[in-house]
Amino acid sequence: MTDHPPLPHRRHVLDLDDFTPEEFEEVFSQAEAMAEILSRPIRQVPTLRGVTVVNAFYEPSTRTRISFEQAAKALSANVINFTAQASSVVKGESLVDTVRTLEALGCDIVVMRHSMSGAPYLVARHFHGPVLNAGDGQHAHPTQALLDLYTMRRHFGRISGLKVAIVGDILHSRVARSNLWGLSKLGAQVVLCGPPTLVGPAAYWEALFPGVQVCHRLEKALDGADVVMVLRLQRERQEAGLLPTIREYIRLFSLTMDRLALAAPHALVMHPGPMNEGVEIAPEVARCAQSVIEEQVTNGVAIRMALLYMLAGARRG
Amino acid sequence: MTDHPPLPHRRHVLDLDDFTPEEFEEVFSQAEAMAEILSRPIRQVPTLRGVTVVNAFYEPSTRTRISFEQAAKALSANVINFTAQASSVVKGESLVDTVRTLEALGCDIVVMRHSMSGAPYLVARHFHGPVLNAGDGQHAHPTQALLDLYTMRRHFGRISGLKVAIVGDILHSRVARSNLWGLSKLGAQVVLCGPPTLVGPAAYWEALFPGVQVCHRLEKALDGADVVMVLRLQRERQEAGLLPTIREYIRLFSLTMDRLALAAPHALVMHPGPMNEGVEIAPEVARCAQSVIEEQVTNGVAIRMALLYMLAGARRG
Amino acid sequence: MTDHPPLPHRRHVLDLDDFTPEEFEEVFSQAEAMAEILSRPIRQVPTLRGVTVVNAFYEPSTRTRISFEQAAKALSANVINFTAQASSVVKGESLVDTVRTLEALGCDIVVMRHSMSGAPYLVARHFHGPVLNAGDGQHAHPTQALLDLYTMRRHFGRISGLKVAIVGDILHSRVARSNLWGLSKLGAQVVLCGPPTLVGPAAYWEALFPGVQVCHRLEKALDGADVVMVLRLQRERQEAGLLPTIREYIRLFSLTMDRLALAAPHALVMHPGPMNEGVEIAPEVARCAQSVIEEQVTNGVAIRMALLYMLAGARRG
Repeated sequence: MTDHPPLPHRRHVLDLDDFTPEEFEEVFSQAEAMAEILSRPIRQVPTLRGVTVVNAFYEPSTRTRISFEQAAKALSANVINFTAQASSVVKGESLVDTVRTLEALGCDIVVMRHSMSGAPYLVARHFHGPVLNAGDGQHAHPTQALLDLYTMRRHFGRISGLKVAIVGDILHSRVARSNLWGLSKLGAQVVLCGPPTLVGPAAYWEALFPGVQVCHRLEKALDGADVVMVLRLQRERQEAGLLPTIREYIRLFSLTMDRLALAAPHALVMHPGPMNEGVEIAPEVARCAQSVIEEQVTNGVAIRMALLYMLAGARRG
Repeated sequence: MTDHPPLPHRRHVLDLDDFTPEEFEEVFSQAEAMAEILSRPIRQVPTLRGVTVVNAFYEPSTRTRISFEQAAKALSANVINFTAQASSVVKGESLVDTVRTLEALGCDIVVMRHSMSGAPYLVARHFHGPVLNAGDGQHAHPTQALLDLYTMRRHFGRISGLKVAIVGDILHSRVARSNLWGLSKLGAQVVLCGPPTLVGPAAYWEALFPGVQVCHRLEKALDGADVVMVLRLQRERQEAGLLPTIREYIRLFSLTMDRLALAAPHALVMHPGPMNEGVEIAPEVARCAQSVIEEQVTNGVAIRMALLYMLAGARRG
Repeated sequence: MTDHPPLPHRRHVLDLDDFTPEEFEEVFSQAEAMAEILSRPIRQVPTLRGVTVVNAFYEPSTRTRISFEQAAKALSANVINFTAQASSVVKGESLVDTVRTLEALGCDIVVMRHSMSGAPYLVARHFHGPVLNAGDGQHAHPTQALLDLYTMRRHFGRISGLKVAIVGDILHSRVARSNLWGLSKLGAQVVLCGPPTLVGPAAYWEALFPGVQVCHRLEKALDGADVVMVLRLQRERQEAGLLPTIREYIRLFSLTMDRLALAAPHALVMHPGPMNEGVEIAPEVARCAQSVIEEQVTNGVAIRMALLYMLAGARRG
């Protein structure tokens, strides 16, 4: 592990909207060092011994929880898991109470997933140590976006100038939102693609992210893309009347091998998981040579190790 | 960590009714040593390496479970968490079976929370190692009372002679009951205060704890108090008909800043958590300079470390 | 710990049907070495430091999960617990997805319990590391059978030639099935005993395990037995119409002290747990001097340590 200084001006990672290009580079470079640790025969270093990381998951997620748990344990931190039910605004107050108690119990870093957008921000105001947002409502999922960006950078050596098509339910996706912040700051050219009810008005996205393109025809969005990021289609969307039928969605927006051929020959296929194979992505695309979906998962551990390490350093410094 | 001999005549901590004043002192002094460990940059010592502590929680409790988990991990013990549903008397038998199995699996120390009063006593009869009661029914919560007493002693240098007002649902509170054992043994002057339906007959308490006072006017109970211990009001009490309305309870028994002014100027405000702010305690009281509510939580980790260490020593000695 | 070579031709332990007598010996001998570690004052060795064992339990089981967790932690492995709901065939696909994700997350060994027979085989086809079956449907429970066989061997010095009576719901028991593979390969003489509806046709068992005997009178099955293995009676069997009444089952098949007297004087009483005392086994039999039921639990940790160690070695070799 290189002896990087920690992220100097940062205590929390709540979203990527306030990341500078230098910070992205610092995280990526630290993640490289962590990936090297993970490639050793014994993948554990004593760096965070005696530090307690609490996984406070108010929304279930096996894969993200295990990813953080693996990351923390690879650094020899102690991990406390707890899951809880989030519900009403009333609970808002007790969330503050919980986080003060976690601090008094000696928890050093809070990793929080919550179904309410903004909950980790509330927590960060009341917890003295670092807070890592592991996904909040439809708002942000910064560690997922960082691992996505890191995966692109490993393959292309850069983010700037890449054409990235994000396909699916953009409007409700915290993954898309955090990627948009990262991709636009790092100079990628983003195309958002999906049915109008799941993408929303182009003017909205253009106001937030100047230069972003919105289109409703997958074939056009894929044209020459370097990266195709497919989002999970939540079945609730159909129940909410935002989608006529899943069948129609598949016909228009499912990423098939034929459609993938419209992207650049070297295009990467990405998906944050878990996939609905046969819905937003064909099974053969998920497993094709261009798919880096499993590599994303592996990179996620390195990214989270990097963040835990850098934020823990900030805490102590 | 000082090289204290373990609690010499004790294998379990089930309640404080059989604690001697010397034992209290021994626990407090060991907790000081543990607090020192928790103040180091790396808050982990190898003392209990290879020892397995099982958190057997038959009643959910995030904060108490995490407190024991932090305490065990700070001593490098292995922690096994399991939660289960407690219900009928029928289950009584399988509890014995479970605990024998835990022993055969190599679990060394059982930390048990159970909704049935007495369950940890049953377990202690069938488990060869130490059993720590983490709360049983309406009976006892000795580690909570120890951390409360320890907190008072840190602030006043003594327990003897302190005037302690315990306010709220005394009758159903295992926290009040265990504190009463400790406070009376260590020579404090206790006043129990709350509505008659939640305090019960004065004669009952006086028979158990000679010298204890019972009163139903908060203003009188607070007069000159050194410690005000506020209990959580369970909403079930109203449903059970023991309380006319929450509003009336608040009017008569909620600890406000005005009422707190009736206590001694140096009086400590304590609460075992989680709080119903605005019900038994006003939010500004919970966060005022006299409140040691978060310190209680922190002290709980040190107390539990002390107990785990001392009982594990007894096991081996 | 002896420096045994790992199980040379084996990556997974899914059932005992493909175990050679040499492999059984190797596992037993390694388990002896592990039992020695467990008898030390500090029962932890650094052997699997940095290795991640994931307990993927799609069917709840406190005792088997804790046994694997204890085994993994005694070898200093990192343990990730996760529980999930298994249901329909549809889930079959996502099981593959889950296991690929676990691999990408850096999980090295999968311990899987699943209510669907065969699920661990599916997983083993898609996971590059070792898979340990911790019980699948009514199919197999190889680690339980290994600990049973190991317990017999410790007491008799051999398996070959022992008369083993397995009593109860043979037809639906994965424990019986895996024991049958082990016992028949190692030369024991097995008698299956229970009501016809819970044992099934003799011809079926004789075709699978030549020489096995089936009988429906407990007294006859016990005659001269060296081992009496009692199975748990699931109450669902009565609801499914396979059992007239529990009372009748008790009258005919419950192992009482009187009936146990028909077995050899040195006969061992075994039960995989958890017991229905008073149903398939009388409480006094469960705790009599011939009962090795708790020893089975203890041996289970040593057997699982042996398997984790040997399979992890195979992974690296």
